[in-house]
Amino acid sequence: MPARQRAPVSAAILPPGATIGILGGGQLGRMLALSAAQLGLRCHIYAPEADSPAFEVAARHTCAGYDDEAALMAFADAVDVVTYEFENVPVATVRSLEARVPVRPGSRALGVAQDRLAEKQLARSLGAATAAFASVNSEAELVAALATTGLPAVLKTTRFGYDGKGQAKLMAMDGMQAAWQAMRGQPAILEAFVGFRCEVSVVAARGLDGAFSAFDVTQNEHRHHILHRSTAPAAIAPDCAREAVAITRRIAEALDYVGVLGVEFFVCAAGDGAETLLVNEIAPRVHNSGHWTMDGAITSQFEQHVRAVAGWPLGSPALLGAEAEMHNLIGDEAGTWASIVADPSARLHLYGKADARPGRKMGHVNRLKPHPVSQR
Amino acid sequence: MPARQRAPVSAAILPPGATIGILGGGQLGRMLALSAAQLGLRCHIYAPEADSPAFEVAARHTCAGYDDEAALMAFADAVDVVTYEFENVPVATVRSLEARVPVRPGSRALGVAQDRLAEKQLARSLGAATAAFASVNSEAELVAALATTGLPAVLKTTRFGYDGKGQAKLMAMDGMQAAWQAMRGQPAILEAFVGFRCEVSVVAARGLDGAFSAFDVTQNEHRHHILHRSTAPAAIAPDCAREAVAITRRIAEALDYVGVLGVEFFVCAAGDGAETLLVNEIAPRVHNSGHWTMDGAITSQFEQHVRAVAGWPLGSPALLGAEAEMHNLIGDEAGTWASIVADPSARLHLYGKADARPGRKMGHVNRLKPHPVSQR
Repeated sequence: MPARQRAPVSAAILPPGATIGILGGGQLGRMLALSAAQLGLRCHIYAPEADSPAFEVAARHTCAGYDDEAALMAFADAVDVVTYEFENVPVATVRSLEARVPVRPGSRALGVAQDRLAEKQLARSLGAATAAFASVNSEAELVAALATTGLPAVLKTTRFGYDGKGQAKLMAMDGMQAAWQAMRGQPAILEAFVGFRCEVSVVAARGLDGAFSAFDVTQNEHRHHILHRSTAPAAIAPDCAREAVAITRRIAEALDYVGVLGVEFFVCAAGDGAETLLVNEIAPRVHNSGHWTMDGAITSQFEQHVRAVAGWPLGSPALLGAEAEMHNLIGDEAGTWASIVADPSARLHLYGKADARPGRKMGHVNRLKPHPVSQR
Repeated sequence: MPARQRAPVSAAILPPGATIGILGGGQLGRMLALSAAQLGLRCHIYAPEADSPAFEVAARHTCAGYDDEAALMAFADAVDVVTYEFENVPVATVRSLEARVPVRPGSRALGVAQDRLAEKQLARSLGAATAAFASVNSEAELVAALATTGLPAVLKTTRFGYDGKGQAKLMAMDGMQAAWQAMRGQPAILEAFVGFRCEVSVVAARGLDGAFSAFDVTQNEHRHHILHRSTAPAAIAPDCAREAVAITRRIAEALDYVGVLGVEFFVCAAGDGAETLLVNEIAPRVHNSGHWTMDGAITSQFEQHVRAVAGWPLGSPALLGAEAEMHNLIGDEAGTWASIVADPSARLHLYGKADARPGRKMGHVNRLKPHPVSQR
């Protein structure tokens, strides 16, 4: 087990005792750190916020800004590999770390995922469909873009969108000025409003050796632009599920990705009753819709990500029962913890956040439905 | 969710955000802290060793001796409840903490478990059988005690025995002097050497409300006095398993126990082919033979203990598959980690210990055998 005491850790495969640096200190970093600890790996969290939920469960942490070059270099020298838990870490931060230490997934995946245009262009270049879209950098371009998308459409900043922030819905031509103003001058993308049957996501991992492994396709229900409920497997046709996984694999391979990623899709009804898939978003990190894997899969998405960035073989993604469900606890909903822990079918996960602000993800609840024949 | 910011925490039921103090910083404390974190509870570890594995995953820690009254009082004031992860914490330490903060389980269970005589006397007082035994405080008493136990017998210090330390096997009358000298003047107990079919344990929990919940009875195999392998459910008659659970419940109730405890039994063949149970040891803590619950039960023993000491309802102890197996990684065995993580049926747990000394528990591997009909 000795790692840091003996020889320097190999660039590729980390032995137990090695340290994973994580950029970002939210609940995803916290759950990654808990999984790493179970495998005997240490975590060093780097985040600007003093009350970062991940700090409390990690061996070390650095509280500093993403532009603090000295703190970043000290961080790079203290860890054996770096990963990130959210996609809004500046690409420049990751690039300067990459010069000193392996970063998995790297700056390329991050750059693509930070840019809705690049994301959709990548998907299309891989033969996957997306909603109609056009680049918008001015009110005039917005008018032109409507010829591509039609109405209704959604205008979004190309960068730093998250859970519905920086978005404006365009229902009629007279909404254009307000929509453009809502972008506050940032580059934007206009996307055709898509009527979909359901939203699904693929949470999958690619190992350092190129191995690829996907969890069951997950069906997602949003409320107020925030994920409300996920269930796996998704109630979609097997062909459609296979296609979603195949697209995710092509994306992971195109980005030479190492780690867990989440790809969100709209499932639309085609004319002949078949289902078609539109790529909506690529998240270069563990994903909220994969939280069910903590209790519903042999390997959780967090362990899977840790395995990948440590250069270890991926674990089995197999579902443990017939169906798994994840319900987010948003804001005040976390106040129902007492009834959740009293329900033997519920598995409570709380993120250690003190302040239950509206819209804040405070925790989640997993439920696993056993195979009917395997009930005890 | 806010706990420490608002009102003082109620003495009985801890809300998320509250802090559990844990005496002892080994792997059991580490796994308790990981489970507490998942439930949004903070941990404060108190241990004398600077390299305690639990320090790295807890929100706070105190590195101080169990006799450091000032450090203990500061610890008591910083936490909402105290528990312990090993049974060799001095009873005086727990008593002084009890004056300031709830300790679950309390000093009484600790005192009984620290004394092999008291342990066996308690079991007998509850109608459970034990091996024949006698108290030994001198070489002369050892001679007299042999009349009770016969030969072969095992002489053990009554206190601070752990994994075979402080024990001497007596095969013949001429070994008595050496055996008594091995006790180094400490009070001892002579136990008849028991020929047993197998060793089993019951890992169970009692809640603050008196609820009782046992995991499946576990069969244990030791090597060099250290647990090597556990499997659940144990291959014993259903009546015998029920009786083991019933005895454990009586012990927990007699001690007004709150938390997880482990009771070890010898299963002996009775004359008529039936199985009889002898209580061997009571562990007032989470137990090595319960590690399979981390991957093999709906609720792990660590979460169960956290729930109990937090005053929360106990979780379901149901086995997730047909059979669960736990294999300890002792000393150098941890060096096989790479082949373990490459085996999709194996779930690796490592404790973050740098130095793989012979006999040291470095981690464990769980394997869950699914119900035949539920295989995918």
